Amino acid sequence: MNPILVVGSVAFDSIKTPSGEVSRVVGGAATYFSVAASFFTDVRVVAVVGEDFGDSAAKVFGGRRINLDGLQRVPGETFRWKGVYGDDLNSRESVYTLLNVFADFNPVLPEPYRDTPFLFLANIQPQLQTRVLDQVRAPKLVGADTMNFWIEGAPDALRDVIKRVDILTINDSEARQLAGEYNLVKAARLIRQMGPRVLVIKRGEYGVLMAREDGSFFTAPALPLDTVIDPTGAGDTFAGGFMGYLASCGEITDANMARAAIYGSALASFAVQDFSLDRLLRLTWAEIEDRYQQFRQLTQF
Amino acid sequence: MNPILVVGSVAFDSIKTPSGEVSRVVGGAATYFSVAASFFTDVRVVAVVGEDFGDSAAKVFGGRRINLDGLQRVPGETFRWKGVYGDDLNSRESVYTLLNVFADFNPVLPEPYRDTPFLFLANIQPQLQTRVLDQVRAPKLVGADTMNFWIEGAPDALRDVIKRVDILTINDSEARQLAGEYNLVKAARLIRQMGPRVLVIKRGEYGVLMAREDGSFFTAPALPLDTVIDPTGAGDTFAGGFMGYLASCGEITDANMARAAIYGSALASFAVQDFSLDRLLRLTWAEIEDRYQQFRQLTQF
Repeated sequence: MNPILVVGSVAFDSIKTPSGEVSRVVGGAATYFSVAASFFTDVRVVAVVGEDFGDSAAKVFGGRRINLDGLQRVPGETFRWKGVYGDDLNSRESVYTLLNVFADFNPVLPEPYRDTPFLFLANIQPQLQTRVLDQVRAPKLVGADTMNFWIEGAPDALRDVIKRVDILTINDSEARQLAGEYNLVKAARLIRQMGPRVLVIKRGEYGVLMAREDGSFFTAPALPLDTVIDPTGAGDTFAGGFMGYLASCGEITDANMARAAIYGSALASFAVQDFSLDRLLRLTWAEIEDRYQQFRQLTQF
Repeated sequence: MNPILVVGSVAFDSIKTPSGEVSRVVGGAATYFSVAASFFTDVRVVAVVGEDFGDSAAKVFGGRRINLDGLQRVPGETFRWKGVYGDDLNSRESVYTLLNVFADFNPVLPEPYRDTPFLFLANIQPQLQTRVLDQVRAPKLVGADTMNFWIEGAPDALRDVIKRVDILTINDSEARQLAGEYNLVKAARLIRQMGPRVLVIKRGEYGVLMAREDGSFFTAPALPLDTVIDPTGAGDTFAGGFMGYLASCGEITDANMARAAIYGSALASFAVQDFSLDRLLRLTWAEIEDRYQQFRQLTQF
């Protein structure tokens, strides 16, 4: 059992989907990631919130294997994001992204965090990802996420991070953009030449495509769901389940990575079934195992 | 071993993709279907060609378990289609579709064809699909394909066919259109209420999603390929492999349908690797089995 450290946003989200609308609910990549990963291992959170992030908001982390010594609370307002989804849930528009306290965030890791063996750099400014990575002494496995905003806006800083990453999890359009290549097999090859041994391409309702070290691929479908309430955080939840399971295994084999992709997909399939982290917060281990078996039915021949 | 009968187009295609351009090559849904299915069982073709469809064109059927007694050759020109694909190979524009001899096609089945146990109604006018279905005495399993053109243009005639079909294979946008429902789980439920026990939703580079009789799903990914030359006929090739394998099994079980979807996907993965039927025509059984194993690697955990 290896603890895992995540750096990323803890946020207040306002979200509109065809199923309804919520305002100022708890969100953020590090939040989804850590709740998902906490089903498998101990999690350490590096992030910053404002004074408006009260005890009721912090409840999402409560009663779980999540250590918050690295969660700074500073004067000012918490990161805020508002998104509106289209009818098909595949398109979304960001109405605003207010970095607030994240604008001046200088992550300083508590001393015990510096020996964390597993590390996930959720989608934030690449320079922040590097600053966290620099403070961990000898990480055993480093995962990272990013987005089109940084691929376009901070390509050099991003390259510096990617060089030091073992597993990169991005979506298909980001993979194409990062590689400058439309074909995903070729794009995966080019990206793996930038550093990561493994590339996990997230494809939303189509699941994930994992390009492994030996050039072979593994695919995990998304579970077909008759109700999707809110896709926010699905990718971060996937990453939390994926990295959390890997950390719980210790050994990084192809077989463990395949199972990790299924656990990640199972967790993500729950995350989208309610707003914010609501479904994840009432999730039981038996439900996860049940859905893992559904993935067997869905894929085994 | 059950023979399978297919009705559908045999055509001359002109195709432009980012990899190149070919003119007046052999194509058509029934052609791709029957070559793919012939790897598994005996195939009977019901279609019509013009006098311009000479012996060299007919060579695609040669040396295979394909019976052409139901392939009429009549005065006039063969069905012609021209398509241009976009850079991403996902979008395509039909430059023209000339029905030619298909416009007046009245399929009359040779007497021995009327007892064929397996039947596939490839994408043509629904009235033609019905006319063929009417002439088969007691089909054991009926599969069908259709397209947006008929969903919009001949909804009643299409409903009449669908009512009598066991397995419908259409793409995701067609499924959504036919059901009038965006969510694919709900759309599959609605379509299965129209008649088919099983719905196979083709999703191009994302593979297929099969909705089974008990409401459960099976997914087969598409094999990630670093070279896709020409996607034309991929869906028909999938259907040929899928139905052909099922016919060779005889028994229609969930397990056989899952394996059939993998064989169909394997065949389709070859079809797109060259123009026209060129790759399928030089395909060996060993290559199919090898790719079937690659699908195991790709999906098993």
